[in-house]
Amino acid sequence: MEQAQGVNVGLLGLGTVGSGVIRIINNHQQELQHQTGCSISVSKVLVKDKYKQRDLDTSQMTLTEDAADVLNDEKTDVVIEVMGGITEARDYILQALERKKHVVTANKDLMALHGKELLEQAEANGCCLFYEASVAGGIPVIRGITEGLASDRITQIMGIVNGTTNYILTKMVQEERDYEEVLAEAQELGFAESDPTSDVEGLDAARKIAILARLGFSMNVELDDVELKGITNVTTDDMDYCSQLGYTLKLVGLAKRTEERVELTVQPMLLPNDHPLAAVQNEYNAVYVHGEAVGETMFYGPGAGSMPTATSIVSDLVATVKNIRLGTGSGSASKPLHTKAIQANEEVLSKYFLRLQVKDETGTFDGLTSLFAKEDVGFDKLLQWPLEEEDPMSEVVIITHMTNRAAYERIYQELENMDVVLEVKSSYRVEGGQVS
Amino acid sequence: MEQAQGVNVGLLGLGTVGSGVIRIINNHQQELQHQTGCSISVSKVLVKDKYKQRDLDTSQMTLTEDAADVLNDEKTDVVIEVMGGITEARDYILQALERKKHVVTANKDLMALHGKELLEQAEANGCCLFYEASVAGGIPVIRGITEGLASDRITQIMGIVNGTTNYILTKMVQEERDYEEVLAEAQELGFAESDPTSDVEGLDAARKIAILARLGFSMNVELDDVELKGITNVTTDDMDYCSQLGYTLKLVGLAKRTEERVELTVQPMLLPNDHPLAAVQNEYNAVYVHGEAVGETMFYGPGAGSMPTATSIVSDLVATVKNIRLGTGSGSASKPLHTKAIQANEEVLSKYFLRLQVKDETGTFDGLTSLFAKEDVGFDKLLQWPLEEEDPMSEVVIITHMTNRAAYERIYQELENMDVVLEVKSSYRVEGGQVS
Repeated sequence: MEQAQGVNVGLLGLGTVGSGVIRIINNHQQELQHQTGCSISVSKVLVKDKYKQRDLDTSQMTLTEDAADVLNDEKTDVVIEVMGGITEARDYILQALERKKHVVTANKDLMALHGKELLEQAEANGCCLFYEASVAGGIPVIRGITEGLASDRITQIMGIVNGTTNYILTKMVQEERDYEEVLAEAQELGFAESDPTSDVEGLDAARKIAILARLGFSMNVELDDVELKGITNVTTDDMDYCSQLGYTLKLVGLAKRTEERVELTVQPMLLPNDHPLAAVQNEYNAVYVHGEAVGETMFYGPGAGSMPTATSIVSDLVATVKNIRLGTGSGSASKPLHTKAIQANEEVLSKYFLRLQVKDETGTFDGLTSLFAKEDVGFDKLLQWPLEEEDPMSEVVIITHMTNRAAYERIYQELENMDVVLEVKSSYRVEGGQVS
Repeated sequence: MEQAQGVNVGLLGLGTVGSGVIRIINNHQQELQHQTGCSISVSKVLVKDKYKQRDLDTSQMTLTEDAADVLNDEKTDVVIEVMGGITEARDYILQALERKKHVVTANKDLMALHGKELLEQAEANGCCLFYEASVAGGIPVIRGITEGLASDRITQIMGIVNGTTNYILTKMVQEERDYEEVLAEAQELGFAESDPTSDVEGLDAARKIAILARLGFSMNVELDDVELKGITNVTTDDMDYCSQLGYTLKLVGLAKRTEERVELTVQPMLLPNDHPLAAVQNEYNAVYVHGEAVGETMFYGPGAGSMPTATSIVSDLVATVKNIRLGTGSGSASKPLHTKAIQANEEVLSKYFLRLQVKDETGTFDGLTSLFAKEDVGFDKLLQWPLEEEDPMSEVVIITHMTNRAAYERIYQELENMDVVLEVKSSYRVEGGQVS
């Protein structure tokens, strides 16, 4: 092997994450050289204002306000994109790849929307495109999945991959406070955006689960393949019932594979209290992976934050530099092995939690049980008790045995039309039992 | 870079783990080639009886009962040791390294006892020596720590790294059954050895924590540096008090670093119920790592089992093959950066749980509080209630504020000599609060 020369890095963006990347590279030269066998330096940095005062030593690098200075520089080997946004970031990354520069990005929105195109472009140019920091900031889950893939077959990925919603749900259950109240507090504390839609409706989690599923199942799934349901309708009453029954309610991104057909969804789900994801609290993230050989593993850590994210980016940079020197080109798993195949409703198997208010009269229960029996869905757990003495009304909470979604949806529709059912208060999937 | 040739692997041992390794290599040729850029095949295998019937396709490899056939084969690039034991395994690995063969081992006893010597031998010969499977079988924690090292500074490692003891403690707390009874059941079920000493006295966990600390702190710590206390005296009463106070009792391997001085211990500890390690149940393992940049991360998974272990070994093999092709030689972190420095008792800071039986008479409490006050140790939590009506006696449970071990040990000794203290029932460290 030829004597390795130094690797030059171009950086797009110099916010808190970009600054963190520079600090790590400056402070860990010896360790980086030890791991990669060559020196790494940041040569050019795209900034919005090159005259801005910064608490950072940039004397060894050129700051520029023109992306072309970074992208056209023949000496740049690797481009790190930490500017965020979609249109420009996509454009710059495509340009970098066309010019045979390897790319590291932390941009989950971009990877979820344009990952296929960008990975194909990287493959076509024999370049790496790494994006560890785009999912669960400080947790090396993409690397864990990629390395696992060499010797295992992943059958299921479940992730708590949105810190904002996990923070809200944790506070709701711990402090028995309503969604709206906790959301407002989270906004004050900076754990939730002023417009929280993308978090609380599950879109942010869906982007991440699409990225993980594409990689873990080696299949070109897209954001549109992820069924979405947010947490805005979750109540503390629901959570109370979950606790009574031994479950914890979490917003989970789920990717399941049966043979070569997959299911992708983000929705609030009940997890048994002893499931490792059930213990993930506050703004923390965790990704649970089931592989045929290794069984259950879980990666836990901070889902965001500038230093965790910068640490992930530098890990990707190390992997990129190793691959440059290995000549293994585009890295791993950019070309999917499997054709996309999404499960039909009849194939999606799950248990369900269902909470109803019913008329407390003779025959109510018989009506309910025969409806479930007709669809061959059994009860795993059942609670019932009276709500009003005068106008007899009961609350019924059911956890079903495993059933397919088509059957459950038929039951659900009939329930809404039944005279004795006053209201279907809530319905959630129950996951994380025996992995089938 | 020259065109990569195939890599030949020699295997020492063909039990369930060795068979798993062969199965994975046979079944994942395409993925392995994709990741490493070259083909991998097992050429020679050391077995005890080469005529034994095996449920495994070994037609493409030579089975031998003579280790020299594997170690002297010039075509062998990598030797995988899965035979276990100390003396022979050490001897064979040293021979392999002398002959410039890279080595992968799953042997924690060997790495804990002779890791320093073996890693130095690997370094001297420019060879890799990887041992991911030696700690927490299926969990890529050594890789996580190694990669983290390139861009972060690890300050604390806490591990539930012994499946047997975690299984026993989980059952004790869940089923309120005594240690002896649960141990007997664990032995029947195969979760505990017929001689469980190495597990229940903490020696197995100590070996693993020594390996992790050596790596994470880049310091040549040894097994003898790990202070040991097992779980044989843990009672369900202790566990009840822990629950009441919001803690879970776990056997934890702890490695802490303050500046460049470290503390290493394995002992039963109280963890707050919301600490991620507190939720690790049954025979599962998890390693919690705190790094200055990334903050808290945790790796969770099966601590043992032949397929998880075989998967880890193949991951090491992939890393080895990459390093062969990179020419980065001995891999990472074999040469410690720091001189060994163990903390003195005065530097070891912790909270403590203490359970006493005291005479229920005037002045008892005053005596206790002034003893703690003398050492400047405050109470974080305190429970007291009467045990006997006739012969007045109380049980007192204390959780202290943070103190140093020297002060705590002085208090403990005085308590044992105090007239009003009938018995010191138990004493545990409390960890996992704010990381200092």
